Amino acid sequence: MIKTQLNKISSPIKNELDEFALIFKKSMKSQIGLLDLITNFIIKQKGKKIRPLLVLLSAKICGGINERTYRGAVLVEMLHTATLVHDDIVDNADKRRGFPSINAIWKNKIAVLMGDYLLARGLTIALEGKDFDFLANITGAVKRMSEGELLQIQKTRKLDIDEETYFRVIADKTASLLETCCQIGAMSASENEEYHKNMHEFGANLGIAFQITDDILDYEGSSNIIGKPVGGDIREKKITLPLIFALKKVSADEGAKIKKLIKNVEKKGNVNEVIDFVHKQGGIDYARKVADEYILKAKKSLDIFPDSETKESLVNLVDFVVKRKN
Amino acid sequence: MIKTQLNKISSPIKNELDEFALIFKKSMKSQIGLLDLITNFIIKQKGKKIRPLLVLLSAKICGGINERTYRGAVLVEMLHTATLVHDDIVDNADKRRGFPSINAIWKNKIAVLMGDYLLARGLTIALEGKDFDFLANITGAVKRMSEGELLQIQKTRKLDIDEETYFRVIADKTASLLETCCQIGAMSASENEEYHKNMHEFGANLGIAFQITDDILDYEGSSNIIGKPVGGDIREKKITLPLIFALKKVSADEGAKIKKLIKNVEKKGNVNEVIDFVHKQGGIDYARKVADEYILKAKKSLDIFPDSETKESLVNLVDFVVKRKN
Repeated sequence: MIKTQLNKISSPIKNELDEFALIFKKSMKSQIGLLDLITNFIIKQKGKKIRPLLVLLSAKICGGINERTYRGAVLVEMLHTATLVHDDIVDNADKRRGFPSINAIWKNKIAVLMGDYLLARGLTIALEGKDFDFLANITGAVKRMSEGELLQIQKTRKLDIDEETYFRVIADKTASLLETCCQIGAMSASENEEYHKNMHEFGANLGIAFQITDDILDYEGSSNIIGKPVGGDIREKKITLPLIFALKKVSADEGAKIKKLIKNVEKKGNVNEVIDFVHKQGGIDYARKVADEYILKAKKSLDIFPDSETKESLVNLVDFVVKRKN
Repeated sequence: MIKTQLNKISSPIKNELDEFALIFKKSMKSQIGLLDLITNFIIKQKGKKIRPLLVLLSAKICGGINERTYRGAVLVEMLHTATLVHDDIVDNADKRRGFPSINAIWKNKIAVLMGDYLLARGLTIALEGKDFDFLANITGAVKRMSEGELLQIQKTRKLDIDEETYFRVIADKTASLLETCCQIGAMSASENEEYHKNMHEFGANLGIAFQITDDILDYEGSSNIIGKPVGGDIREKKITLPLIFALKKVSADEGAKIKKLIKNVEKKGNVNEVIDFVHKQGGIDYARKVADEYILKAKKSLDIFPDSETKESLVNLVDFVVKRKN
């Protein structure tokens, strides 16, 4: 199902995606066996390639895919891979998902080094190509991604986050990279600043809609196959849009009661009680309504472009990214 | 003692170092409380500022310190801080050195994010200043630092490292950043490519001498106050120059016996037996001789510059860095 949808979305740039895959693989090659072992492992594991897809489609709709587009796509995919590797440091803290031969001590060290390496390698490729405009965008995105996550951690520890901060966090931690993909694709294909601006907005709104949807999924039990377990955010004391809305609807006293449940989240039944509270207060419906607004905004950014197969793909990509059920 | 030596070395650029400290502090300021809390903690902890010192002295000997020099110094110090934070992910794996309020799960995540943030922030400053030459150098250094560490890990796991690989590892993981400091300092002050080349070599040779000395210290018990515990490398199964030399001196059979001791390094007495072996085979004397050659090479790179207080400081800096006993 996912594959069919993605194939349809990719159809206008099928050959270019193959070309990208080749260039990416070549760019990842190093002279250090251990490095290649891990990168191959990563490349095989992850597969949707949403970010290069965004770069290529954005370039195509703005004028056409060229050599610079591919460099941009390699850059964002490398950076994205770097963040995935760095994320594993946290995700694998207790579990062991892979690498039977790498012991627990080296694992974190290797993940840190690999991430740093990939980030530096991506930047080097951009520097060698003199894509200074890409660099400014990409380093800005890295900065915002870490800032957003750190702000979320800071707020999480105090169970204190309002809607404004929530939007700042998700714009930084999630939307910044997607907007960078679209912006880089547009810049590679055209000098038209209106195009740049609109594709930038397309990516930003897509990213926000995506993250809200992700946060909603955390409250929904159905068909949550691959994704995180229901209530995972609550267990991590992350307060997201559905809960923020629900808390605003009730008295300070009742709000304090819910926060107490979250503080003692290990206690059996607490997670479910919070989930029920959010549903009852209309938090899910509200969040879905907000996500829909961002979906509309994203699609509206494409209005300046004439209809085409590529434009249709970008519209379908929005629906694909935000309507997934897992 | 250390402070007196450093004061003497810094005397030609005392005011400029103060100016740097101000700019650095300002550059580290963010809008996220948690971030500032951690950066302040880091700034207070670490103190020798060898890298900005190298940038400033290199600029001064090549023509003079200017605005670009400060940006370069901020860039390398930020990058260095990023790597320190990332290093902590490994070093703190078992211990708890600081941050009483940050729990064990967030610690790694925060360290990763902080490192990424600092790296991106440094690069942004360079981009805004259009210091593209700095960027090429610094991303190259980041890439080499992670490559060097990964190569060392790969070799460590097989207990298999020869002298050639050892030098590649230390050139990448340690010398690359010091050579970048000197190169950036030189580039900020002059367009004379011979200056750039000589300062680059100065930093590279200084870095190699520094790492060999560090590896020797691991085999020496005396006055090892602040540094790592004696035998720490052996416990981590890291094979460095003194041991490489010692292993080359003996028969394959005897070598295999020593490697077996290292493989079972948890067994009481094994570490000391390896240390004794290295001393007896002249591994320490050899490594010291090699370090001395690199010290000489570093100092020789300064021959093209006329005598000055700054030149004397750079010479003293070499002695300071490699003759430290802890």
